[in-house]
Amino acid sequence: MSWVLVLDYASVFIFALTGALVASRSQLDIVGFVFVACLTAVGGGTVRDVILDRGVFWVTEPSFVVVASGAAMFVFFTAHVLESRQKAIFWLDAVALAVAVPAGVGAALSVGVAWPIVLIMGVATGCFGGLMRDVVCNEVPLVLKQGEPYVTCALAGAGAALIVLTLGEPLGLALIACAVVTFVLRGGALAFGWRLPVYKSRPPRV
Amino acid sequence: MSWVLVLDYASVFIFALTGALVASRSQLDIVGFVFVACLTAVGGGTVRDVILDRGVFWVTEPSFVVVASGAAMFVFFTAHVLESRQKAIFWLDAVALAVAVPAGVGAALSVGVAWPIVLIMGVATGCFGGLMRDVVCNEVPLVLKQGEPYVTCALAGAGAALIVLTLGEPLGLALIACAVVTFVLRGGALAFGWRLPVYKSRPPRV
Amino acid sequence: MSWVLVLDYASVFIFALTGALVASRSQLDIVGFVFVACLTAVGGGTVRDVILDRGVFWVTEPSFVVVASGAAMFVFFTAHVLESRQKAIFWLDAVALAVAVPAGVGAALSVGVAWPIVLIMGVATGCFGGLMRDVVCNEVPLVLKQGEPYVTCALAGAGAALIVLTLGEPLGLALIACAVVTFVLRGGALAFGWRLPVYKSRPPRV
Repeated sequence: MSWVLVLDYASVFIFALTGALVASRSQLDIVGFVFVACLTAVGGGTVRDVILDRGVFWVTEPSFVVVASGAAMFVFFTAHVLESRQKAIFWLDAVALAVAVPAGVGAALSVGVAWPIVLIMGVATGCFGGLMRDVVCNEVPLVLKQGEPYVTCALAGAGAALIVLTLGEPLGLALIACAVVTFVLRGGALAFGWRLPVYKSRPPRV
Repeated sequence: MSWVLVLDYASVFIFALTGALVASRSQLDIVGFVFVACLTAVGGGTVRDVILDRGVFWVTEPSFVVVASGAAMFVFFTAHVLESRQKAIFWLDAVALAVAVPAGVGAALSVGVAWPIVLIMGVATGCFGGLMRDVVCNEVPLVLKQGEPYVTCALAGAGAALIVLTLGEPLGLALIACAVVTFVLRGGALAFGWRLPVYKSRPPRV
Repeated sequence: MSWVLVLDYASVFIFALTGALVASRSQLDIVGFVFVACLTAVGGGTVRDVILDRGVFWVTEPSFVVVASGAAMFVFFTAHVLESRQKAIFWLDAVALAVAVPAGVGAALSVGVAWPIVLIMGVATGCFGGLMRDVVCNEVPLVLKQGEPYVTCALAGAGAALIVLTLGEPLGLALIACAVVTFVLRGGALAFGWRLPVYKSRPPRV
């Protein structure tokens, strides 16, 4: 089983958990949970595969959808024991981002596109599932939460993978570096408030 | 003319009516009506065709767009006679769902994908047009309306089609069963409040 | 360099400026600016290329993304000098629409589709980038702003291109006519309140 496949399974599972947790706020039935979970889980990879004109990964291998549906059902029956869904969503989303970005980078490398496209596919695979989840569920997208780095962490992770590859190291190491950098930066943002300077307009804002 | 084509025409026409009715709340001009109607009418099928890598149905056969535009113009000039647009939207949307789900199932069967993908394509074709309509027009998506089954009805309809096919019956019968099951369940939800148990969190919600 | 390519570069650059200006309201960091700018800049053309099953333009030619990122960084460091971001967004968006519509028309003509599809690709290329920008950033979509023509201007521009071509004039002239008609109508709507009659429901609205 290839690296990209393992990473795709992990990100599908974890993003599905976050999707189901967001769905739990809307008091949906179990099929509604599965719907939001699947959208979140495969959304980023679907955008990636459609743009790269590869076959869409979960059409080729439907077990991804089974994994996402299982995750949604698990959340449906257990989410009420969580003390804070918001905290669980934040941290699971960070883990999912950290596996989805290298999955996107690996997939883009496998079709041999230019390096800016590799960066973009890492970011898109990481960010679009969560973005669709939040847009569909009427939440403020995590991706664009005021002042917090999100795309930045994904881009840094994808960049780390390219640097490791440029140094002549093997693909596996590059994807691990990508995951570690993404998670450490995103986790640091959540735990310690790490951030880049943000744009500030002059008051009064027009 | 194939079954899928007939169903595609019907769902395009009826979803276009719902799109134009939602547009009528935003006081758009007639071209705005046509835009929202077309997005709603072909959105689900476009997602289906792009993911399955078939040619997009309305690019091959532009008369679909003409049908959707006609429906939008009809609504532009007549919607003011409706007593309750909301009720009209709910019921037209239920009919559209009931023809779009078998259209998605039939299209997926015609390209020979695995059965979980057939289910998903039924659900996606049925749900994504309305989802785009509601997201673009800033409405709470019908698909995710609190407690009400929507995806559930689509999934049950798609499942009914697969069961009928497994019993060795012809495609036409399977697609009719799909439409009937979808409409009866969705209509029952609207008229009698049928629903599955929904997720409930413990108060206080965090 | 072909006409479509020039128009694509221009629309990518100007839509990226509008995306970054909208991002500036959410106080994102510089990578967040680049993300929203790229989504806005390439969103419409990506939808066009995926539906027409051409290769996606910025995957073939990654310099588009570099242009969009540069525009985003420029806005990040200079937007605070603007007196009214809203006004700048409106007018830049009008210019971007006026170059994106002919880019869409030209791309559709180059793959030889039926004329209704040419009109739709003009409108889609012009409208979807801004639509994604506004949906993701939780703004009321400009495309659907109450009473204001937007899709109407795009459609009129695309129609003008087809009329000029039908008269036997060369492609370049048709695309220029498209840009001029789109910009004059959209600019007139912004500056003088030009509009078509809009749908009005009877009070009380239900």
